[in-house]
Amino acid sequence: MSLEIVSQARCFGGTQYVYRHQSEATGTAMRFAAFVPPAAETEPAPVVWFLSGLTCTEENFTVKAGAQRVAAQLGLVLIAPDTSPRGEGVPDDPDGAYDFGLGAGFYVDATQEPWRAHYRMASYVGEELPAAIAGLLPVDVSRQGITGHSMGGHGALTLALKNPGRYRSVSAFAPIVSPLDCPWGEKALGGYLGPDRAAWRAYDSCALIEDGARVPDILVDQGLADGFLDTQLKPHLLEEACRRAGQPLTLRRHEGYDHSYFFIATFIEDHLRWHAERLG
Amino acid sequence: MSLEIVSQARCFGGTQYVYRHQSEATGTAMRFAAFVPPAAETEPAPVVWFLSGLTCTEENFTVKAGAQRVAAQLGLVLIAPDTSPRGEGVPDDPDGAYDFGLGAGFYVDATQEPWRAHYRMASYVGEELPAAIAGLLPVDVSRQGITGHSMGGHGALTLALKNPGRYRSVSAFAPIVSPLDCPWGEKALGGYLGPDRAAWRAYDSCALIEDGARVPDILVDQGLADGFLDTQLKPHLLEEACRRAGQPLTLRRHEGYDHSYFFIATFIEDHLRWHAERLG
Repeated sequence: MSLEIVSQARCFGGTQYVYRHQSEATGTAMRFAAFVPPAAETEPAPVVWFLSGLTCTEENFTVKAGAQRVAAQLGLVLIAPDTSPRGEGVPDDPDGAYDFGLGAGFYVDATQEPWRAHYRMASYVGEELPAAIAGLLPVDVSRQGITGHSMGGHGALTLALKNPGRYRSVSAFAPIVSPLDCPWGEKALGGYLGPDRAAWRAYDSCALIEDGARVPDILVDQGLADGFLDTQLKPHLLEEACRRAGQPLTLRRHEGYDHSYFFIATFIEDHLRWHAERLG
Repeated sequence: MSLEIVSQARCFGGTQYVYRHQSEATGTAMRFAAFVPPAAETEPAPVVWFLSGLTCTEENFTVKAGAQRVAAQLGLVLIAPDTSPRGEGVPDDPDGAYDFGLGAGFYVDATQEPWRAHYRMASYVGEELPAAIAGLLPVDVSRQGITGHSMGGHGALTLALKNPGRYRSVSAFAPIVSPLDCPWGEKALGGYLGPDRAAWRAYDSCALIEDGARVPDILVDQGLADGFLDTQLKPHLLEEACRRAGQPLTLRRHEGYDHSYFFIATFIEDHLRWHAERLG
């Protein structure tokens, strides 16, 4: 399958696309959403990646966050990948749980059977898809920023920390900051990477910072009425890791906001402006 | 059942609610979404109604239009009702078609069996629900505006034209302007109101204007890449009816925009500002 357009729609003077292509990394067909702002008609635009959370596809952010308005104003291309491989032959959580397998790729390259053949979302999102869009869309790939929500916030932070030259800016909404230290993370990394927790450190924002990874600065927003705050997200762990390491972090806590897209929609403008300032 | 909160979430400094209550008009439990802006904490706020299109519930507008940002700025309460009665004993289209029955109430009070017991969306949206929110939310019911999309644009225009004292402002996105003159309308009004087309005129914007109904002004946005433009929507019929009657109309046609929420999201700010100016 070559790259094909699944849908396209005019939106805030730009175009919202959904594409489908065959991924070498995952060995499956993958979908992603791409918003191209009006400014990209005349010169290549910087790119902001949005990585979504558990159960999401490329659609959730695209239809719920209201990001296109701001991206159109700022001249940003937005890319929203899917959250896991899908389709025939792709194994899912044996119990069909929402927090592992389909919709829950955790932005890692799995090393364990039966996951390692398809669950290679780190390579897909970090390497294959940027190369694919570089040949497809009017993007300046020297100017990429990355953000995400929950599992996708974890993905954004870890990809940026592991590839500081690739992303000029990074932020997150209610991210899982330490898979080593929460039930979602322990299940996912235990399954995809196996029981050796030392191997998990390459996919744990706090551990990466502890082990010396650095980015210029990080913006994180977190709602204080988020039902996953204390059990899964634990932003204080990131705060402590950054303080100990001297890693600049702007962590904003918001009274009353939960884990939903109403929270993301409220603060997406701040994030896109943060990225635009750093992407030039 | 008394009125109950199904969900609530902080959003742009206000609160997005979904409520459920027992409707006397429809004889069923009904859901509606209500956004309350920060300004309504200190004094009653004007209300803008959004009536949704075929297949929608109270959710589509609420999660896809990005309207809360603007409503928070302008101090508007937003109410999004469901599009039909639902639940046990509510008949649906015999073939399960999307354009009649569930999700397709067309904002009429049905007179025909088996529809007339429950399909009373004109009374529900126009009378019962305004009274219900007046006792529930910090709203100034003397300042109401109404808008909607497609079937809901038809609902907004007809409710406003039939009740000019009730709504101070009216607009629509890609409305069905004449059910008398399109397949969706002929099926729906034929089913709910029976074969006498004279009875349909009370639910046809063009016929209402022809028969003397007036509002101060109307704003309509229409995408020119809308797949339903020529077969179902036919904005030129409204344009002609308004011109002949001297009814003020601002009809904006937008190159490249389709029938989706990407179109609504792009222009919702213009509509809410139009309503806010007229609601004071």
